[in-house]
Amino acid sequence: MYSVAQLKEVFLDYLQQNPFTQAPIKLFEPVDYIMQLGGKRLRPILVLMAYNLYETNIKAALPIAQAVEIFHNFSLVHDDIMDEAPLRRGKPTVHYKYDTNTGILSGDVMLIYAYHYLLKVEDKTIIPEIVKTFTEVAEAVCIGQQYDMDFETSNEVTIPAYLMMIEHKTALLLVGALKMGAILAKASEEDIVHLGEFGRNVGIAFQLQDDILDTFGDPAKFGKRVGGDILQNKKTFLVLKTLEVANEIDKKQLEILMSSYPSDEEKKIKEVRTIFQKNNIQNLADQIKNEYQDKAMYHLGKIAVVDSKKEEFRALATLLLKRNE
Amino acid sequence: MYSVAQLKEVFLDYLQQNPFTQAPIKLFEPVDYIMQLGGKRLRPILVLMAYNLYETNIKAALPIAQAVEIFHNFSLVHDDIMDEAPLRRGKPTVHYKYDTNTGILSGDVMLIYAYHYLLKVEDKTIIPEIVKTFTEVAEAVCIGQQYDMDFETSNEVTIPAYLMMIEHKTALLLVGALKMGAILAKASEEDIVHLGEFGRNVGIAFQLQDDILDTFGDPAKFGKRVGGDILQNKKTFLVLKTLEVANEIDKKQLEILMSSYPSDEEKKIKEVRTIFQKNNIQNLADQIKNEYQDKAMYHLGKIAVVDSKKEEFRALATLLLKRNE
Repeated sequence: MYSVAQLKEVFLDYLQQNPFTQAPIKLFEPVDYIMQLGGKRLRPILVLMAYNLYETNIKAALPIAQAVEIFHNFSLVHDDIMDEAPLRRGKPTVHYKYDTNTGILSGDVMLIYAYHYLLKVEDKTIIPEIVKTFTEVAEAVCIGQQYDMDFETSNEVTIPAYLMMIEHKTALLLVGALKMGAILAKASEEDIVHLGEFGRNVGIAFQLQDDILDTFGDPAKFGKRVGGDILQNKKTFLVLKTLEVANEIDKKQLEILMSSYPSDEEKKIKEVRTIFQKNNIQNLADQIKNEYQDKAMYHLGKIAVVDSKKEEFRALATLLLKRNE
Repeated sequence: MYSVAQLKEVFLDYLQQNPFTQAPIKLFEPVDYIMQLGGKRLRPILVLMAYNLYETNIKAALPIAQAVEIFHNFSLVHDDIMDEAPLRRGKPTVHYKYDTNTGILSGDVMLIYAYHYLLKVEDKTIIPEIVKTFTEVAEAVCIGQQYDMDFETSNEVTIPAYLMMIEHKTALLLVGALKMGAILAKASEEDIVHLGEFGRNVGIAFQLQDDILDTFGDPAKFGKRVGGDILQNKKTFLVLKTLEVANEIDKKQLEILMSSYPSDEEKKIKEVRTIFQKNNIQNLADQIKNEYQDKAMYHLGKIAVVDSKKEEFRALATLLLKRNE
């Protein structure tokens, strides 16, 4: 078994050996730019980890790992245009560095290139199932992004709808990465289901934790500005849960605060946080997050490989879900 | 054999029976909108025609026809954003009717949906080759669009480069449509090559004819404003050929005209047309167009099916390439 760090290294080697730069340069240079910006490389690592549960030589899974990472970066390029985001991983986004048309077209060619890499899988009999899994996930990610945009202007977002949105936007690509690795390794249908459920539950738990840390995290460790979601009036789990459990006065006050853009930002963050604390929201959110984490671990346990092989999955989940306060 | 008109009807029936409307409505309604805007449906017809050369029941080819039409419309949605075009087939473009973000994301989901339809092909053993052919063509179309945008600001566009650009942007999708129909029908490799060459040469001839008609067509029959390319300073085949064959004075005058945006538009059109006429450009362009048309017919002749089955291909090529003056 490879460690998470080793898998990342193997993937980065492959990425380095498969650059995108070709003519026309204006189309492909931005692809190399975003692909080299760094990041955790979580999704390709999940492809390789799932494959590595069954096969010691992980080479055959590298094109799928690459496809998943290209797709993830495609979605970042187009999302950053839609969100008008100037920065990604501390560097200019593609449409800021180049222009919006470049962002659109280079994004398009990335989505196509993801399929290009899936087709490099040597076992051709498995390609229809791989392409199908990938296509379903890709569609789900678009649906998640649309719901995320819809929710910005809706006042009727429910907790189940929110969970459905983060499942589509974040969790299902993790599910797809794990499933494709396992499908390529010809794992049993049961194992594929359990791996997928592990990914789904880890993905949702990870997003819930992000919501918690965005409001309650340690500024020195969080990496982004703590309180950012509050300032953007985002309907996170914390907000939706408060609207569910709080009394009418707190609900009304939160609704007013979460539709305001005051000049004293720290005051707003503090007031919203006070309402959350009064209603025990951090604990309630932690509780739900832990439920998803427990479900993930349950499904990991059900996978029919010797337990020692699951160690890296536990390590990765712990890393992703560790409290960062 | 089905006639072109019958194939269009069969395709439109399938399109009608497979609507895109589902939740989230803001993502999929624009897909239905653009798919219902009409058009010649040339590309799906080519898929079905190629399949119909070998098989009488064309039902199995319908998902591929749908995939190709979805892809074509995806490229229109994103190109219209990049070109800031307000109208498409006389109706508002997607990003004008909705907004740019909708155009981007609904376009993305269309590209993914094209694959979704390819995966509906019942013979799973053929899917890897179909998906590969499709993916190569999709990449080529993006490359063609990038070259088209690059050429707008370049003063060093050559005729070979221009032909390469229109081959990528227009012809290769016709090639792909024909090839996928033939691959599904398990046609011989020779037939697939000849069908592809037929499509490539028809596609280039069609684009050259569009260049000619845009300047010399009958305003009553052309559908767009005659002289539109001249007013937009587009480096069409006519311009590039003039820069190749004309004397220095004509070249200089054309260069000045083709970088101007005068208020008297009709005067500019007339002056550019006069330079073309003096240099016999319409005939030279016709000559090249006819060479491509002849090559298309040569390859059509080489396809190993009885000649009577090729009648609809000849009818379609004649329809596409008929002089419209």
